[in-house]
Amino acid sequence: MKRHEVTGLGNALVDVLSRVEDSFLAENGVDKGIMTLIDGARAVDLYGRMGPAHEVSGGSAANTIAGLGMLGVRSAYVGKVKDDQLGAIFAHDIRSLGVSFETPMTRADHTADETGRCMVLVTPDGERSMSTYLGVSADLAAADVDEQAMADSAWLYLEGYRFDGPDSHAAFAKAIRACKGAGGKVAITLSDPFCVERHRDAFLAMIRADVDLLFANEHELLSLYQTETLADALEAARADVDLTACTVGERGVHVAGAHGVIDAPATDAALVDATGAGDLFAAGFLYGLLHGRDLAVCGRMGCVAAGEVIAHIGARPEHDLKALFRADGLI
Amino acid sequence: MKRHEVTGLGNALVDVLSRVEDSFLAENGVDKGIMTLIDGARAVDLYGRMGPAHEVSGGSAANTIAGLGMLGVRSAYVGKVKDDQLGAIFAHDIRSLGVSFETPMTRADHTADETGRCMVLVTPDGERSMSTYLGVSADLAAADVDEQAMADSAWLYLEGYRFDGPDSHAAFAKAIRACKGAGGKVAITLSDPFCVERHRDAFLAMIRADVDLLFANEHELLSLYQTETLADALEAARADVDLTACTVGERGVHVAGAHGVIDAPATDAALVDATGAGDLFAAGFLYGLLHGRDLAVCGRMGCVAAGEVIAHIGARPEHDLKALFRADGLI
Repeated sequence: MKRHEVTGLGNALVDVLSRVEDSFLAENGVDKGIMTLIDGARAVDLYGRMGPAHEVSGGSAANTIAGLGMLGVRSAYVGKVKDDQLGAIFAHDIRSLGVSFETPMTRADHTADETGRCMVLVTPDGERSMSTYLGVSADLAAADVDEQAMADSAWLYLEGYRFDGPDSHAAFAKAIRACKGAGGKVAITLSDPFCVERHRDAFLAMIRADVDLLFANEHELLSLYQTETLADALEAARADVDLTACTVGERGVHVAGAHGVIDAPATDAALVDATGAGDLFAAGFLYGLLHGRDLAVCGRMGCVAAGEVIAHIGARPEHDLKALFRADGLI
Repeated sequence: MKRHEVTGLGNALVDVLSRVEDSFLAENGVDKGIMTLIDGARAVDLYGRMGPAHEVSGGSAANTIAGLGMLGVRSAYVGKVKDDQLGAIFAHDIRSLGVSFETPMTRADHTADETGRCMVLVTPDGERSMSTYLGVSADLAAADVDEQAMADSAWLYLEGYRFDGPDSHAAFAKAIRACKGAGGKVAITLSDPFCVERHRDAFLAMIRADVDLLFANEHELLSLYQTETLADALEAARADVDLTACTVGERGVHVAGAHGVIDAPATDAALVDATGAGDLFAAGFLYGLLHGRDLAVCGRMGCVAAGEVIAHIGARPEHDLKALFRADGLI
């Protein structure tokens, strides 16, 4: 038995969540509904204009791993924080869920950069617009990837966002090689349509060569394959990868693979804050897969977990996901 | 016209909020429903045992001042944070509400203590049990009190908790003298029955000499006057101070003064997290008083503001308090 069932790799961030009116986005040049990378100066400026906020541990793959940890899945996380107060908060929150988090923290005297943070502006419609100051999370390099730990994980879960960093291509390659070399499988989430645009060719090459499970929403999948219709994009994905889970918002999810395409419905959760919906979908889906459930059940588990996280502010679950699966008749 | 209508003085803290079962409190020696002061070592130990948390700016008087800021009352705050990440969060959150916050931050190289934090453990019944590491907030001293700013404030709002600090008696005395010397008025909140026990004689002397408005809940008022019944405690308060607002949980508030005792009812808000209930009561009550409303309306405004903050996690309001006053027919 492998030590970990899933190891996530991504941007280790603390979310700074605040409710705003739509006019705030327009006045401050924040693009609605997507993630924009910002530098330290812009982060200070934007934060200065924002109202009061909540700080909650975030990071896309970290949210997925936190969900898996809550579900009792043996999990690990690889991502870079500094040994500052926000880094301590990030490390505490993920470890308190039983997740192994051993990536060396960047020492305080090593750089002026800080633990990364994502300013999440939530508009009254529940949509979130993200401005991310990556800080030291961008410094994740091959040296941070422990090959033995990768070989000892049944699944490697890669966050597309993290592919942006200078040394991260090498980190991805090292992690994939170590995990697959020991018989593990690889999942990736495309993260964001603009992230896909930045890395389309590299993503496609990686997916075709090494990825066993692809997570995306419809915008990301359309961006990856540049097709007219989602049906065509799903066909293209079926040719490239064993399994694709493509979420389609309140319509649920399409799961594409050798079997064709299976749908699972979303829950009717009231949308309060969409942050983390895709991340928790992946957690629920992987939980089903690890427990040998059929794909329709995996898809529904993803939707139930996503439904929990969109019903409140913040991208980490606040209720017992297993109890929700039970209430939905899934376990 | 004075520059500020209300200036608050208290412990500048960031709340670390987490949901726990009652068994966690018992197993970890946390006394339910009250605030316990802890040292740095205990803070590290307790945090290590806690699950994932949200970080939200807190501090009792700071919550009151944040509420007043949201209500458009010209407000200021005096409290001590360090120039670390949590200190920056605290300063951002209160300033973003238009509150003046000019207390010098403790420099990073000056002490190993950090910005104070309050671990708020919320049990399923909505009760909160607080373990406070004061950090640099305990260092508030007379030198941090700007006499000119105090003279330029119509009300001074003192947090009983802050009376614990070694140099804080002098800070309180300086602030009271400057404010009252310029024709201002003084309010104090008793904060906690154990805080009252620690300082009963000093509180009584201060209340009799200088306080115009006393905020307390029934446990605190009974502790202050050591009477058998709340009616007797209210009578004693009437003899000592112009106005006393004594909250009685879901039964609302008794407002005692020269007029006798007037009651105002609580709202029927579902209790999610009691943190900040008393603080926001004070904000609503002071808002009414500053706008010349009669005492029953002031009391109800306090209850409506408290009802907002107990309906969600965290001690700062998340909804427009003025809109809630309007919906309740108060403005």
